[in-house]
Amino acid sequence: MKTFLEMTNDQRREKLAQQQKLYEVQRAAGLDLDMSRGKPDANQLNLSMDMLQQNPYDLIYTRKGTDVRNYGELAGVDEAKELFGSVLGVGMENVIMGGQSSLALMYDTVIKAYVLGVYGGSKPWGQQGHLKFLCPVPGYDRHFRITQEFGIEMINIPMSETGPDMAMVKEYVESDPSVKGIWCVPKYSNPTGCTYSHETVRAFAALKPAADDFRIFWDNAYFVHGFRQEDDDLLNIFDACKEFGSEDMVYEFMSTSKVTFSGAGVAVLAASKPNIQFLTRQMGVQTLGYDKINQLRHVRYFKNIAGLKAHMQKQANYLRPKFDCALAALEKGLGDTGIGTWTNPNGGYFISYDGLPGTAKRCVQLCADIGVKLTPAGAAFPYGIDPEDKNIRIAPSYPSTSELYKSMNVFCICQRIAALEKLLAE
Amino acid sequence: MKTFLEMTNDQRREKLAQQQKLYEVQRAAGLDLDMSRGKPDANQLNLSMDMLQQNPYDLIYTRKGTDVRNYGELAGVDEAKELFGSVLGVGMENVIMGGQSSLALMYDTVIKAYVLGVYGGSKPWGQQGHLKFLCPVPGYDRHFRITQEFGIEMINIPMSETGPDMAMVKEYVESDPSVKGIWCVPKYSNPTGCTYSHETVRAFAALKPAADDFRIFWDNAYFVHGFRQEDDDLLNIFDACKEFGSEDMVYEFMSTSKVTFSGAGVAVLAASKPNIQFLTRQMGVQTLGYDKINQLRHVRYFKNIAGLKAHMQKQANYLRPKFDCALAALEKGLGDTGIGTWTNPNGGYFISYDGLPGTAKRCVQLCADIGVKLTPAGAAFPYGIDPEDKNIRIAPSYPSTSELYKSMNVFCICQRIAALEKLLAE
Repeated sequence: MKTFLEMTNDQRREKLAQQQKLYEVQRAAGLDLDMSRGKPDANQLNLSMDMLQQNPYDLIYTRKGTDVRNYGELAGVDEAKELFGSVLGVGMENVIMGGQSSLALMYDTVIKAYVLGVYGGSKPWGQQGHLKFLCPVPGYDRHFRITQEFGIEMINIPMSETGPDMAMVKEYVESDPSVKGIWCVPKYSNPTGCTYSHETVRAFAALKPAADDFRIFWDNAYFVHGFRQEDDDLLNIFDACKEFGSEDMVYEFMSTSKVTFSGAGVAVLAASKPNIQFLTRQMGVQTLGYDKINQLRHVRYFKNIAGLKAHMQKQANYLRPKFDCALAALEKGLGDTGIGTWTNPNGGYFISYDGLPGTAKRCVQLCADIGVKLTPAGAAFPYGIDPEDKNIRIAPSYPSTSELYKSMNVFCICQRIAALEKLLAE
Repeated sequence: MKTFLEMTNDQRREKLAQQQKLYEVQRAAGLDLDMSRGKPDANQLNLSMDMLQQNPYDLIYTRKGTDVRNYGELAGVDEAKELFGSVLGVGMENVIMGGQSSLALMYDTVIKAYVLGVYGGSKPWGQQGHLKFLCPVPGYDRHFRITQEFGIEMINIPMSETGPDMAMVKEYVESDPSVKGIWCVPKYSNPTGCTYSHETVRAFAALKPAADDFRIFWDNAYFVHGFRQEDDDLLNIFDACKEFGSEDMVYEFMSTSKVTFSGAGVAVLAASKPNIQFLTRQMGVQTLGYDKINQLRHVRYFKNIAGLKAHMQKQANYLRPKFDCALAALEKGLGDTGIGTWTNPNGGYFISYDGLPGTAKRCVQLCADIGVKLTPAGAAFPYGIDPEDKNIRIAPSYPSTSELYKSMNVFCICQRIAALEKLLAE
C-alpha cells in the first residue's frame, strides 16, 4: 500500500473524501473527550487512598519526636528528606521538602533568583539586564510560562532520543553570561518520553558556565514512573557533577503529584549543601515550613524505597494499557500513511507525535471542532510557537480506555485530513 | 507599699539583693522553658484531630463534582472560598485559597508585587527605586523580616489601644508615593492584643494613597480567636472601603494555623474582584493549585460558620486559663512595683509587656541565662530595634500551665532585677 506521500493527487483527493465522511460520522456522534493534560483519572487516584486511611494518631510524631501538627522543621521532617533524598541518590542534608507542587517550587526558585540572587552569584538575576533560558523542545509548557512571565528570553534547543543537543547547550552556556538556566525533564521527558543518556548527563555536569549564577533546573518529575518491564536508567546528575566539582550548578525537583495525588502530594528540591543552606535561609523569611502532616503521611505509607516502588507498580499496571491502546490506535490508523512518527516511551505521561510540517494546528482544530480536546498545537514550545507546526502532545492517562479509543480514532482521521490537505496544497 | 520608682537607692539595693537571691534559686533549679513563640501545645492541637478522622472517601468530590485529588480549581474549591469568605464578610469571588501558610501567601504577594506589579500599578515595585512600608509597632516580627528581605525601608508607626496612629499613617501614605504598603494585624494584634476601632478601620478605608500601587496588608490572623466572653468587634474593612471606592487598596489574609494545625491548615487571601483576577492570573503561572483535599477536609469538618465558632470555643476554653495564669503572675509579681504595664487581651496569642525604658534586652538575657527563653527583645520592631528597649512579647500558649507559672515567676524576678539595676544606674 502506498503512503500518502507516494500517492498521486487524485488518489489523495479520493482518500480525503473518504476521511471527510468518517469525520462527519464522528461529528454526528457528539463527542466530548479530553486528551489535553497529563493527569491521572479517578481510578488511578484510588490506588493511593490507603495513604489517607492511616490512623492520624500514628502521624503525629516524627522519629525524633517533633509534633508535625505544629510549627517547626522548616525544611521538612527528617524521614521525608531521607526517603526522597535516597530516591534521588542524595543525602537528607541535600533536600528541602517544599509544598505540594514542584511547579510552585520551581517558580519560587526562579523568582527568588530574580530578586535575591543565587548562591555564589554576584547579584540578583533581575539586576543584570536581558536574561536567557535554554529550552529543550518539545518540552513542558508550564516551565516555559514561568520564564516567559519574567521576561526571560527562551532559546529552543532541539531534543533527540538521548536528550538535548549538548553541543548547542555548551556553546550557549559557556559563551553567554546572560544564559541563567535550562529547563530539563531528564527522565521520561515531557512530552517525548526519552531519558537523557549517561553521556548527556555527564555533558551537563561538565558545563563551565560563563555566568556565575547559572542553574540547571532538573525537573525529575517522572523519576519512578516507568510502566514497562524495561525501566530507563538515568544517571544521577549529582554523581556526575562530583567529577567536575559542579554540584552547585544543579537544582533537582520532584513531586508525588503522579505518585499519590495531583495537587495534594509533596514536592522536593535537592541541591548541594551550599545551595540548600542559601535557599533555607531565604525560605525562613517566607514561611515556618510546609505541611508536615502530609510529609509524614507519605513516608509512613511508603515506608521505604521498596514500598514506593511497589506502589508505583500499581500505577504502572494501570497506565500501561492506556498507552498500549493509544499506541495501537496510532499504528492501526497511521502506520501505513507515512505522515507521522511518534514516541513509544517506557514511562511518563505522554506520547509525542510529529506529523507533516504545517499540519499540527489544523489537526488540533479539526479534533476540537468535533469535541476532542488536545493540548494546543505549539504548547510544547516557548511562546507556544512550534517552528514547524508539526508536534502534538498526546496524553492518554486521563480518558477512560473507551474514550481514549474513540479519541485516538478521531485523532487519526484528523491527522489524515490535515496531511492530505497539506499535500494537495503543495 | 512603695513602687520601685518611689524607693530610695538604699531601698532599691536591698530589694535588688533579695531578687538576686531568688534568681540564684531559680538558676539552681536548672530550668529549660520556652515562652518565645505563639504556638499551640500538643493538647490544643488534639482538639482538631477529629478533622483528620473523617472518612477520606467522603472527601473526594466537591459539591459541583470536582475530584479534589486531581489538578484543577486553581483558586480553591467553592465551598472553602464560600466558608472563609463568609467568615471575612466577602463573597466567594473575592477569595483565593492559598497553601497552608498565610505568611507564605503574604511573602508571595510582596515578591510578585516587586517583580510583576499589582493591579492598577503603572510598574512593578522593584522598578521604582527606594521603597517604604509602614510598620505599626510593636508588631509581628515575621512581617518585618519580609519587607527587610526586599530592602524596603520600614517606618515605625506607634500603636495605641485603637490601632496605629492614623494621622501619621495618612501623612505618609498620602504624601509619599514610595510608601507601598502597611502591615496590619487588625484584630487581637500581635503582640498588643488590641483590636482596631471602627474609626481606625474607616480611616484606613478613607486613605488616598500618593502611590497608584499602595496596598494594606490586612493580616486577620486572629479573626475568630477571642477567648473571653467579650469578643472584640472588628469592622469589615471591605465594607468600610465601599463608601470610598477603595476596595482595591486592601489584601486581607488569614489562615487556620491557629484554628486547626499550625503549618498544616489552609490559608486565604481576600481582595476586590480586580485584585483577585489579577492575582489569579499570576497564580496560574505558578501552580495548578494548592492542596484541595485539605481544603475539603477543613470545610466538611467545620460545615459552616457556626461549626467553626463552636470549634474555636474549644480552643478558647483551653487557652484562656493559660492567659489568666500569666496575667495573675504579672499582677502578683509586678503589680505593686510600678515598673511595667501589660495588655489584657480578649483574644489572640500574646501579652505585650512594657517595662522601664532600657530594660528589655537585659531582662530577656537574664531569663535566657537561667533557662527561660523569651522572644528576643526588640523582635516586635523593624530591624529588631525597639527604640526604647522596653517591650517584651509574652507568649503563654505553648508551655504547660506549670511551666508557664515557673516561667512567669522567673520573668517577674528578671524584670525586677533589670528595673532596679536601671534605676540605681541613673
